[in-house]
Amino acid sequence: MKIIDGKKIANDIKEEIAQEVAAIREAGGKIPHLAAIIVGHDGASETYVGHKEKACNQVGFNSTVFRFEDDVAEDTLLRRVHDLNEDPEIDGFIVQLPMPKHISEQKIIEAIDPKKDVDGFHPINLGRMVIGLPAYISATPAGIMELIKRYNIETLGKDVVVIGRSNIVGKPMSILLGQKANPGNATVTMCHSRTKNLKEVVLRADIVVAALGRAEFLTADMVKEGATVIDVGITRVKSDKTKSGWKLLGDVKFDEVAEKAEYITPVPGGVGPMTIVSLLQNTLKASKGEIYPK
Amino acid sequence: MKIIDGKKIANDIKEEIAQEVAAIREAGGKIPHLAAIIVGHDGASETYVGHKEKACNQVGFNSTVFRFEDDVAEDTLLRRVHDLNEDPEIDGFIVQLPMPKHISEQKIIEAIDPKKDVDGFHPINLGRMVIGLPAYISATPAGIMELIKRYNIETLGKDVVVIGRSNIVGKPMSILLGQKANPGNATVTMCHSRTKNLKEVVLRADIVVAALGRAEFLTADMVKEGATVIDVGITRVKSDKTKSGWKLLGDVKFDEVAEKAEYITPVPGGVGPMTIVSLLQNTLKASKGEIYPK
Repeated sequence: MKIIDGKKIANDIKEEIAQEVAAIREAGGKIPHLAAIIVGHDGASETYVGHKEKACNQVGFNSTVFRFEDDVAEDTLLRRVHDLNEDPEIDGFIVQLPMPKHISEQKIIEAIDPKKDVDGFHPINLGRMVIGLPAYISATPAGIMELIKRYNIETLGKDVVVIGRSNIVGKPMSILLGQKANPGNATVTMCHSRTKNLKEVVLRADIVVAALGRAEFLTADMVKEGATVIDVGITRVKSDKTKSGWKLLGDVKFDEVAEKAEYITPVPGGVGPMTIVSLLQNTLKASKGEIYPK
Repeated sequence: MKIIDGKKIANDIKEEIAQEVAAIREAGGKIPHLAAIIVGHDGASETYVGHKEKACNQVGFNSTVFRFEDDVAEDTLLRRVHDLNEDPEIDGFIVQLPMPKHISEQKIIEAIDPKKDVDGFHPINLGRMVIGLPAYISATPAGIMELIKRYNIETLGKDVVVIGRSNIVGKPMSILLGQKANPGNATVTMCHSRTKNLKEVVLRADIVVAALGRAEFLTADMVKEGATVIDVGITRVKSDKTKSGWKLLGDVKFDEVAEKAEYITPVPGGVGPMTIVSLLQNTLKASKGEIYPK
């Protein structure tokens, strides 16, 4: 059994990006600049945006955060989005979700210029990904694909089962792994709450992506010997064994599944650390015009 | 075994649309108007566009065809696309593919206003479909979903296998049948040329969608007793038994598979007749602002 060390890979990639930014700086080029819009004072959102700013600093990107109060008008946000679309200094930007109820998240997302949509949530980027055209891939799927690449996990002709059909993980993962590409070319089955014979289906999988959001759902009896197990879940539960009084659980019952798996991602330290790195990679691509020529 | 009679359903739907158009006309409303752009003199393209014009006439739509020679400049086509985007008389339009080599099909498709993209090929419509938002669904997948609906074929919790991963059939069918919707909610596996144990996978399927484009590929030994079989293939082969000297074959070896299937679509007369009807339905939706409010 080998643990897929997302933390290490994330640090490696940050180091690679930092070197590239240093070279850009040396050559007098434009430093990549990521902006974020955050509304209100949701604790988790604040934390995420804080992590993103810190990551930008680590690799040498410029970063700007635009803060709005909970009662901001939708029009005000849309104006900010339009300004960022037009601002040549900003290479890419994200709108931290969730938004307050009176704001249409979809309207805001669709107002973002797809060329600067480094979260990959705009339907154009999703549609281009489905067709196999260059597109910003959203952070979690992009991070998982990067882990698969860096650990040389074979996907061609493999039976993959994705558990969960969310728009930001399950669906894009199914599409990416079935795509004519490397990694890709797998035979993918997407399971969800209405799947009838889940255990039987998952037992056939060479690679399992657990992304349903239920703590320790995937148990050893559901996993084939030698499978690769990617755990996307993060559930915070109370614990009297940690200083903070909390611990994080994945969708996989790690200890028992690890004994059967060939590769497995831990929680924390697996897929999680990759998400911010994916955002950095997308921002670098944006600044270089790699997805959409400038 | 029941044959899914696409020709009959297509005629039923045309009749329903014709009645709706008659009512619109009576009320003095705007008659739906579909336009088509065709380049060159490709025989198949001419035939398709001819069929589409005829179908428009049958249901009472207005239709206009814009013809260009093979050597038309890309800019000329783009200008026509922009004009159609702006023209309030035109509710929806299509660009008949394939285009000559010097034209970028993707550039033309992405120039179409998604609100008028009744072929559903614009990445925005594809992306919105993936997210589960209102979107124009392209003709073949929309036609198959309509057949499933009208024959009350249960998809919830069923094991579906889609053979083929094309952008216009395999991928959208996989997404639609796995979607949280009715029809939908199936456990979908998408197979393709790199799938290793295809027969074994297909034998598990309650519903098989054969869309790989190889005549009579799917044989009885690959199909479970009582499965529903949707045949998307159309291959024209020489025949000394028909007047024309040609006959059409599907991807399914019809005679032998029909003996095991509960429902099966024939070729011709199954999925084929539904495609033009889907285009009419999309045009009607466009004229009513059902997908994108006007």
